[in-house]
Amino acid sequence: MALAPTIVNGKKLVTLIPGDGVGIECTTAARKIIDAAGAKIEWDVQQAGESVFKQGFATGVPQATMDSIAKSRCVFKGPLGTPVGYGEKSANVTLRKLYETFANIRPVREFPGVTTPYSGRNLDLVIVRENVEDLYAGIEYMQSPGVAECLKLISRKGCEKIVRMAFEFARAEGRKKVHCATKANIMKFTEGLLKRTFEEISKEYPDIEASHIIVDNCAHQLVKKPEQFDVIVTTNMNGDILSDLTSALVGGLGFAPSANLGNDVAIFEAVHGSAPKYAGKNNINPTAVILSGVMLLRHLGEFEAATKIENSVLYTWEEGKARTRDVVGDTGAASTTAFADAVIANLGKKSEKWKARDYKAIKIPEISKAPDFVKAKTRKTLGVDIFLESSTSSNDLGKSLEAIAAETPFTLKVISNRGTKVYPATGAITDLVDASVCRFTSKIKDAAVSEKEILSLLERVGAKHPWVHIEKLQDFDGKITFTKSQGED
Amino acid sequence: MALAPTIVNGKKLVTLIPGDGVGIECTTAARKIIDAAGAKIEWDVQQAGESVFKQGFATGVPQATMDSIAKSRCVFKGPLGTPVGYGEKSANVTLRKLYETFANIRPVREFPGVTTPYSGRNLDLVIVRENVEDLYAGIEYMQSPGVAECLKLISRKGCEKIVRMAFEFARAEGRKKVHCATKANIMKFTEGLLKRTFEEISKEYPDIEASHIIVDNCAHQLVKKPEQFDVIVTTNMNGDILSDLTSALVGGLGFAPSANLGNDVAIFEAVHGSAPKYAGKNNINPTAVILSGVMLLRHLGEFEAATKIENSVLYTWEEGKARTRDVVGDTGAASTTAFADAVIANLGKKSEKWKARDYKAIKIPEISKAPDFVKAKTRKTLGVDIFLESSTSSNDLGKSLEAIAAETPFTLKVISNRGTKVYPATGAITDLVDASVCRFTSKIKDAAVSEKEILSLLERVGAKHPWVHIEKLQDFDGKITFTKSQGED
Repeated sequence: MALAPTIVNGKKLVTLIPGDGVGIECTTAARKIIDAAGAKIEWDVQQAGESVFKQGFATGVPQATMDSIAKSRCVFKGPLGTPVGYGEKSANVTLRKLYETFANIRPVREFPGVTTPYSGRNLDLVIVRENVEDLYAGIEYMQSPGVAECLKLISRKGCEKIVRMAFEFARAEGRKKVHCATKANIMKFTEGLLKRTFEEISKEYPDIEASHIIVDNCAHQLVKKPEQFDVIVTTNMNGDILSDLTSALVGGLGFAPSANLGNDVAIFEAVHGSAPKYAGKNNINPTAVILSGVMLLRHLGEFEAATKIENSVLYTWEEGKARTRDVVGDTGAASTTAFADAVIANLGKKSEKWKARDYKAIKIPEISKAPDFVKAKTRKTLGVDIFLESSTSSNDLGKSLEAIAAETPFTLKVISNRGTKVYPATGAITDLVDASVCRFTSKIKDAAVSEKEILSLLERVGAKHPWVHIEKLQDFDGKITFTKSQGED
Repeated sequence: MALAPTIVNGKKLVTLIPGDGVGIECTTAARKIIDAAGAKIEWDVQQAGESVFKQGFATGVPQATMDSIAKSRCVFKGPLGTPVGYGEKSANVTLRKLYETFANIRPVREFPGVTTPYSGRNLDLVIVRENVEDLYAGIEYMQSPGVAECLKLISRKGCEKIVRMAFEFARAEGRKKVHCATKANIMKFTEGLLKRTFEEISKEYPDIEASHIIVDNCAHQLVKKPEQFDVIVTTNMNGDILSDLTSALVGGLGFAPSANLGNDVAIFEAVHGSAPKYAGKNNINPTAVILSGVMLLRHLGEFEAATKIENSVLYTWEEGKARTRDVVGDTGAASTTAFADAVIANLGKKSEKWKARDYKAIKIPEISKAPDFVKAKTRKTLGVDIFLESSTSSNDLGKSLEAIAAETPFTLKVISNRGTKVYPATGAITDLVDASVCRFTSKIKDAAVSEKEILSLLERVGAKHPWVHIEKLQDFDGKITFTKSQGED
């Protein structure tokens, strides 16, 4: 197992957060089943979410819950709501962030008796989604009153962690193929970093077939021929979309469990929200939460109880006597508790056709924690991109900046607007916004520029044109580390 | 119609770029059908793509082609390849960028005899994808040797153009609903800008039902219940994924036409690539290119010929005598030319069941070209975010920066790392990368800071810690225009 479980009263300690809305019914059902299956779990029930926000905790996660997690390092939770007007960030996200659970694992498989357009194709695949970085960090700045910017940050360390996790997860589940889905053809540095990391690390896993796929084609293929996939590893935002796509292939969010894995803490939860309008009605499908519990048990090394429950869930759906409202509609639907009771009654039974896999303990990758995970042997600063808020015409702005640069060691190389070169003019028809990127490099080709020269340039430019954003143009180990605009040579 | 066609020899002028690989076969088939349908088109055949790159044109688009487009303002093209080692950007993208075709329109509909998991659900929906801005501008910088950044830029002007286009397109096609798919819940400024623009502009189109949907749920719903959608408007990257998803719902890229619309030029092309391995084999499905030609004809106001061709294509697929290899496999497949001949033979015939819509001319939105599309009445600079490359511990970095700030008008508010607050410490477990964001604001709460103060701070910080990236923290019209990190209060 990944993290040695904490033993309390001879049992494995788990922090149980029932959550909001339907979370309470679902986690109650899952806990009852887990206990009935003979797993020795010591549940430490803690609060987070709506009620906690309303008590005035801005994060939605109180200290007692954090103390419990520090001890258990293992959380089983229902969905948490963020009440309107309380807190800026969802407590679900806060928990994932607080404990650096860098991998979001989202398996989907076909369930017997749950008819979808893909029934009979025996889908069984897993999205391994990076869970910490990318656009999801939500780092945003307005560049002008009408132009917004969000930073997409992707690190080599983050890529290495998620790629290794994908391969280790594949091994633990006896899976044979890992696809890496990126948009590296457009974003060569960020998405390209994941692609290059994948291609490098995959060599350490010769037992697993590794392929790269462009993310839009991945979405296409997931609809056209999803049975070709086994494990897909991808960045946070793309993984958000792809994993929601895949859960629809097998019948919806009622069947979509997840694990958030890190080196310190693991969090198991269904993908669905707290669905307040169904809360307390005892009619929600608890399968996703139960299957999250199965993932929890495997994480704790309780393979026997996990497989017993998974087999019972498959048997119960195949048997078809207790099927929930999301699958059969209102008439004849089993309640949440009736479904859970059926699963308990079926513990020990196995479908002939629908089988649980053979699982081994996952080896969670341990990567160096050094912030400077990649080091450059040589480096120089080649210039600076100054982002101006300006509604001046490109030609006038270009002339003005050239006049300013004339008195400095810099030359104005190019002005671009939303990624397209607009000065010197190219003949392209470009609709301008008032956020221009003005690239200054040394008058001497490929020469380094100094910090002092940059600040002096900034002062001169800033005196005439308000800047909002600066990027240094760097060369690491003889390679330029910035892209050219469309039309720039 | 949108742009008055250019008349040459009494016919409407179109620049025809046959393209690379299978493009030649497909555009030849489509041109033959268009001429046979009686549309009066003057084709000006021009080159772009592989052969042009190999002649040494870095953009893949020669002057003669640009001259032709300047005259016709209307392009019908096959896919263009980018040979390895020539040029950095695809000529397909260059053409879209050169002419500011800001809207990528991608309709899909069910075809008779083309069996998919969704057959019989009568899918008929359109993705309207922003085509100029967003992550697709490919503006990237390494923030350290191991941390890459891509800028996602979204403008109010860009949002307004694409949203109006979506509603105008819906009206032209007699469609009733427009969904706007965003990730505004995570990216409040960028994706939120599209959501807010949509909610505002939708009021001008009371005849059309308008709803917002979170993009990951949109992907889920497109798989689960695609028939609920009519038109979906979205940002460039999300639209890339969603439109490739939707083309798979109806049988793949052989059935996915597209239009790139702008205020000056329109470009019609299939979504598929040049597929070099099928080139010259006369076995590719030309339906997507033919349907792109149908969109071209409607753009030129040739509604009668357009509907005649669309009806014939539907009739031909329903009849099932000429079906291509992508649908029926190798045995008994019709060649590209045989399929085209069947469509020509069927011109004038109509399916009883499968109908073309009633179309009207689209009114392409004309938006102010002012770069300062949104103006702020008041503004002040509240501070600065300095992005440092540093492998120092957060605590040591924090102490060092506080000491520096002590001698300035600034205070260090927070240090964050990949969007999570790491100084002052929060107790979170955060795996650091060597790219930290250090937020400095005035020592006097909410007071403005000057340009000179910022440059002086930069000089002091830069003397001890190398910075790579700066963002001014601005207030426009009394609203802060930057996000807080996870854990920042």
